[in-house]
Amino acid sequence: MGHLGHRPQFHPLKHGFDEWFGSPNCHFGPYDNKVKPNIPVYRDWEMVGRFYEEFPINLKTGEANLTQIYLQEALEFIRTQHARQSPFFLYWAIDATHAPVYASRPFLGTSHRGRYGDAVREIDDSVGKILSLLQNLGISKNTFVFFTSDNGAALISAPKEGGSNGPFLCGKQTTFEGGMREPAIAWWPGHIAAGQVSRQLGSIMDLFTTSLSLAGLNPPSDRVIDGLNLLPTMLQGHVMDRPIFYYRGNTLMAVTLGQYKAHFWTWTNSWEEFRQGIDFCPGQNVSGVTTHSQEEHTKLPLIFHLGRDPGERFPFSFASDEYQDALSRITPVVQQHQMSLVPGQPQLNVCNQAVMNWAPPGCEKLGKCLTPPESVPEKCSWSH
Amino acid sequence: MGHLGHRPQFHPLKHGFDEWFGSPNCHFGPYDNKVKPNIPVYRDWEMVGRFYEEFPINLKTGEANLTQIYLQEALEFIRTQHARQSPFFLYWAIDATHAPVYASRPFLGTSHRGRYGDAVREIDDSVGKILSLLQNLGISKNTFVFFTSDNGAALISAPKEGGSNGPFLCGKQTTFEGGMREPAIAWWPGHIAAGQVSRQLGSIMDLFTTSLSLAGLNPPSDRVIDGLNLLPTMLQGHVMDRPIFYYRGNTLMAVTLGQYKAHFWTWTNSWEEFRQGIDFCPGQNVSGVTTHSQEEHTKLPLIFHLGRDPGERFPFSFASDEYQDALSRITPVVQQHQMSLVPGQPQLNVCNQAVMNWAPPGCEKLGKCLTPPESVPEKCSWSH
Repeated sequence: MGHLGHRPQFHPLKHGFDEWFGSPNCHFGPYDNKVKPNIPVYRDWEMVGRFYEEFPINLKTGEANLTQIYLQEALEFIRTQHARQSPFFLYWAIDATHAPVYASRPFLGTSHRGRYGDAVREIDDSVGKILSLLQNLGISKNTFVFFTSDNGAALISAPKEGGSNGPFLCGKQTTFEGGMREPAIAWWPGHIAAGQVSRQLGSIMDLFTTSLSLAGLNPPSDRVIDGLNLLPTMLQGHVMDRPIFYYRGNTLMAVTLGQYKAHFWTWTNSWEEFRQGIDFCPGQNVSGVTTHSQEEHTKLPLIFHLGRDPGERFPFSFASDEYQDALSRITPVVQQHQMSLVPGQPQLNVCNQAVMNWAPPGCEKLGKCLTPPESVPEKCSWSH
Repeated sequence: MGHLGHRPQFHPLKHGFDEWFGSPNCHFGPYDNKVKPNIPVYRDWEMVGRFYEEFPINLKTGEANLTQIYLQEALEFIRTQHARQSPFFLYWAIDATHAPVYASRPFLGTSHRGRYGDAVREIDDSVGKILSLLQNLGISKNTFVFFTSDNGAALISAPKEGGSNGPFLCGKQTTFEGGMREPAIAWWPGHIAAGQVSRQLGSIMDLFTTSLSLAGLNPPSDRVIDGLNLLPTMLQGHVMDRPIFYYRGNTLMAVTLGQYKAHFWTWTNSWEEFRQGIDFCPGQNVSGVTTHSQEEHTKLPLIFHLGRDPGERFPFSFASDEYQDALSRITPVVQQHQMSLVPGQPQLNVCNQAVMNWAPPGCEKLGKCLTPPESVPEKCSWSH
């Protein structure tokens, strides 16, 4: 699971979870435990090991048992909750398809898609085992399952460790459809008919509100909640017309409203990065759209029709009637959004090597506490 | 149906068909019947009208009833054969998705994909009606249905009148996957299980051999037949390892063998065309691959792995072991192909405005015979 935040205040058990197995960051590494420590894996409050140490990942062969470990944790959690007759919420955040991509030995080399395909096959197999357990325990009709991804395929890792965004433009790190648009599957036998397709525009933020609704709760009323309850969509086929706002940092890059998408800023990555071979849009180039400088279009946004042009290749002519019509619909929605926005406290602005997992709770029991460097808080530098 | 050839010797009734309703070319136009005649529609030996005249197409709204007319012809043909208890072969070549794209009024404006999507929906609906008729007549278990396309989406017509090739590179007119790779569906209830997926590499030429096999016949033995019988693939799941050769004119541009594809020549279209806005690869650009000059790579072909890199974005390094291994497998297959090839007579080399549908058979009954210009046979100029 990516970037939960590694500081103590971001610990899942401080955010409503009763149990946790996993890591506060992705499985980057290996590190030397001198300049940087390897990233720890936790059970509840304490670390139980580190990636590349107790939780090995062979970068050369791509072999790692992590998906199998996460699968067993999920199955065990479900069995325990079922035995207790407890309702439960499981957030199963596997990361095998994040570079460095890994799979366990039975899956390595089994796909036509290389290591990335092997990882997808293992995830697919694992999801199947979780669904089978729910059915075997007789609780599938009481269990809502939602499957999706937090971003489009990271094409910087393609072709060996990256997926494909099909017809969509660019990949992860951008606000083009390839970076932001993901498939999602909702499963709830007896409630959601198999094989239905919804065109509802949703966001992962909707899962918060939707989960509350499933639990019979209302979202807190003391703040603006961006997420919508998707149950009317999934159960009754309702489609709600709502905008989705695309940000990079504090910059509103784009908005989607119905089939229209307006870009207020275009940027892939810097010329400097691009010239080093870092490419968020390999093989793709839309003139004036996949720009390597940050181009402002706030006065006259670039507008695409995602139905006819899902690949964002053909911006409307500014002079066309359809452009003027789309803009007249988008403008008030964006104004309303910007007027009602309450800026949050940036969570990723302070970097400090001293707080980076040197001696997480529990390290002393394992004899794995490392000595942190001197504490030097700095403004983080985010290259993208 | 595209480009059957308009000269009398190419008439379908001279090539094994007993009945014909359709046109020897696509529905281009409208023409002025002076410089060029509108393209005729035939029933059997004689024309019954012309596109934009007896068979109207409204270019502004996209409305035309042609798919409905072709559908009624197909349903009537099937009913008649069934009443006669005759076995039958129907080649149903609809062209609504070829620019100028059209749909009938009940379908116009019904998709999120614009006019192209409307046309696809009408074709989908029509295919459903044909399959339903086969089921209602009780002959679905005796009827083999194969659905595919003769080329990838023509991206020169995108976004208003062109489809999408998803993750594949470029479109129709090129030998990249977007131009040559199409989905195919085989339907034969009771023989082919629903939902199966085959990774067999096939070609439309295989339908000739496959159809003969279904009829209990062997292909002629006095010549080399390129098509394979696909029944073992469709009925027993066999996968045959066979190359597919990609030509433009007489030039072998590329070959696919297993997951490997080697390009001996790369070319999209000329700089001259491209600068006029004719683009076979809109939004796509792979350096050294989507070239606008005809680049020769016969000595050291560009090789891609279509499993890991279906979009042909990452050619192998010439120095890699995988390149050398793939090349050593591809080279003898290409040599064998070139040694055994018997060049055919070019069918599209002679152009003559005088033979272009001015006075097709039957025109006199309709009072629609036009006066051809003087006969001036010329070598054809094919810009792509």
